[in-house]
Amino acid sequence: MNTAQRAEAFQRMHRGPAILVIANAWDAASARMFESVGLQAIGTSSAGVAFAHGHADDSDMPRDTLLQATAEMVRAVLVPVTADILGGLGDTPEAVADTVRAVIALGAVGVNIEDGVDSGAGYAARLRDVEHQADILHAAVEAARQAGVDIVVNARTDGHWLHLGSEAEQLRTSVSRAQRYVQAGASCVFVPSVTRRETIATLVAEIRAPLNILASPGCPSVAELQALGVRRVSLGSGPMRATMMLTRRIAEELLGSGSYARIHDDAVPYAEANAMFTPQ
Amino acid sequence: MNTAQRAEAFQRMHRGPAILVIANAWDAASARMFESVGLQAIGTSSAGVAFAHGHADDSDMPRDTLLQATAEMVRAVLVPVTADILGGLGDTPEAVADTVRAVIALGAVGVNIEDGVDSGAGYAARLRDVEHQADILHAAVEAARQAGVDIVVNARTDGHWLHLGSEAEQLRTSVSRAQRYVQAGASCVFVPSVTRRETIATLVAEIRAPLNILASPGCPSVAELQALGVRRVSLGSGPMRATMMLTRRIAEELLGSGSYARIHDDAVPYAEANAMFTPQ
Repeated sequence: MNTAQRAEAFQRMHRGPAILVIANAWDAASARMFESVGLQAIGTSSAGVAFAHGHADDSDMPRDTLLQATAEMVRAVLVPVTADILGGLGDTPEAVADTVRAVIALGAVGVNIEDGVDSGAGYAARLRDVEHQADILHAAVEAARQAGVDIVVNARTDGHWLHLGSEAEQLRTSVSRAQRYVQAGASCVFVPSVTRRETIATLVAEIRAPLNILASPGCPSVAELQALGVRRVSLGSGPMRATMMLTRRIAEELLGSGSYARIHDDAVPYAEANAMFTPQ
Repeated sequence: MNTAQRAEAFQRMHRGPAILVIANAWDAASARMFESVGLQAIGTSSAGVAFAHGHADDSDMPRDTLLQATAEMVRAVLVPVTADILGGLGDTPEAVADTVRAVIALGAVGVNIEDGVDSGAGYAARLRDVEHQADILHAAVEAARQAGVDIVVNARTDGHWLHLGSEAEQLRTSVSRAQRYVQAGASCVFVPSVTRRETIATLVAEIRAPLNILASPGCPSVAELQALGVRRVSLGSGPMRATMMLTRRIAEELLGSGSYARIHDDAVPYAEANAMFTPQ
C-alpha cells in the first residue's frame, strides 16, 4: 500500500461505524507494540517525543528531532501513522505547508495542527488569531492535495487545554474555531482536555466533522465516547508518561530492596523484542 | 565538573566500599528518571536504543543513531554515563579508537566493548579472536589516555551470554579472556548471563579487576552480589523491555475494556514531565 492509499484508508477509518482508537507512540518500539496488539492506526505524541529526547513539550525541540522520530515510527509499522506537528513547526502558512510536505514524504498520512501557543510549559498561553490559523490549515490541506495524498488534517483547538476563560467561554471558543477550521478544509477536529459528557455532546452536535477526544483522566470509556458520537479517541502523552513512571519504580526497587521484580516479572523477552525488529 | 573529572569520579565508584548500581537507559527520559531517583551513574543499553529506534540488537543499527542517542542521554543528566558501544562499532583497533574518541567528545566517561559477534539475533554466534580483542581494548584505553579522560573501559566477554560450550567451558573461557583483557588495560570486566553464586564467586576470585554482573532473571539481589565481591551490577535492556510490555498492556486495555487505568493510575504528571526537561 503506498502513502496515498494508506491516507485513503485512514480517512475511511474516521467515517465509522466504530470509533477510531489511536494510540500515541513516541518511538519505534512503542509504535510497534501498539500495532502488534491490533490498533488500526498510530498517532505520534509530540510531548512523548520531546521527553524521550530530553526536551519540554514546547518550541525548544529541534525540528529535525521531531521529523526523524516521526520517520522511525512510520518505518516501524504498516498501519497509518498521523504526525503530531505541534503548531506546524512554523508560524506562517508557507512554513507549515513545508512541514506537511516533509511528513508526507516520510510516509505519514495525517497531521495534528494546534492553535495554542506555548501550551507545553503553560506560560503566556494564548490561541493564534483564528483567521491566521484558518490560513495555516488551508495551506496544509493544499500542500497535501498538491502532493496527491489526501491526509487527515486534524485541527486541534486549545481553549479547553489552556483553560482560557470560563467553561462556557471555552466551549464557545472551541465550537466557533472548530467551525472555522472545518470551513478551511480540516477533516477532523481535536479538542483536548474535554471529559464532561454534556460538553462532548455539544461539540458533536455543533461540529460538522469527526470529533477527536483525548483520553485524559476522567474521560468516558471508548464505548461511551462512541455512543456520544465521538469519531476518534487518542491518548496523547499518557502512555509515555506511564512508562516514565515504571522506569522510576524500577529504580526505586533497585535502590530499595535491591531486587528486580519490576524489570523481569512482565517484560517483553529479549528474543521476542529482537525478532520484532529483525527484517523478515 | 568536566568530562575528565566525571571520569575520575566514575572510576572511584568502582573501588567500593559499596557495589556500584548502574541502570541502563535507552533515551533521555529514562536516563533522567533513573537519575531523579538517586542512581549514581547511568549506562546506556545498545539493545534498548536499537529497539527504541526500530532495529534488532545487532549490527544493523546505524552508528549515528547510537551516537546521537548516547549524546541525548549524556545531556539529560549530571551523573556519569557509560556508553554501550557493542563491539566498538568497528572491527579494527583504529575504528574502535575512533568510536571511543567520539563518545568521549559527547561526554561519556565509560564504554562497554563486547567480544561476542552477531550476539543480538543469536545467529552464527562466536567470540572474536582473543588477541584481536585485546588489541581493540588496548586501542580504546590508549585513545582515552590521549584524550586526557580516564574512562572506564568495561571489557565484556560473551562466552556465557552466547552459551558457547558446557558450563565449565564457559567459565574457563570467561576467566582466561577476562585476565587477558585486564592485562590489555581494561578497568572492569563484564560477564553477562551469569547468575549462579558459585560461578560469580569464582569470577571474583580469578579476575584482578572489578566484576560487573547483569541483573538477569534469577540474579542474586544487589546486597548478595556485594557480599560475593561483585563491584558493579547493571540492568541491560530489562527496563526498556518492561516498558515495552507496559505499552502492550495499555493497548490491550484500550481494545479490551476500553478504559485507561493503566495509563493514568501511575504516570508522571504532564506538568512534572515538562518541568523535568525545562532548562532552569
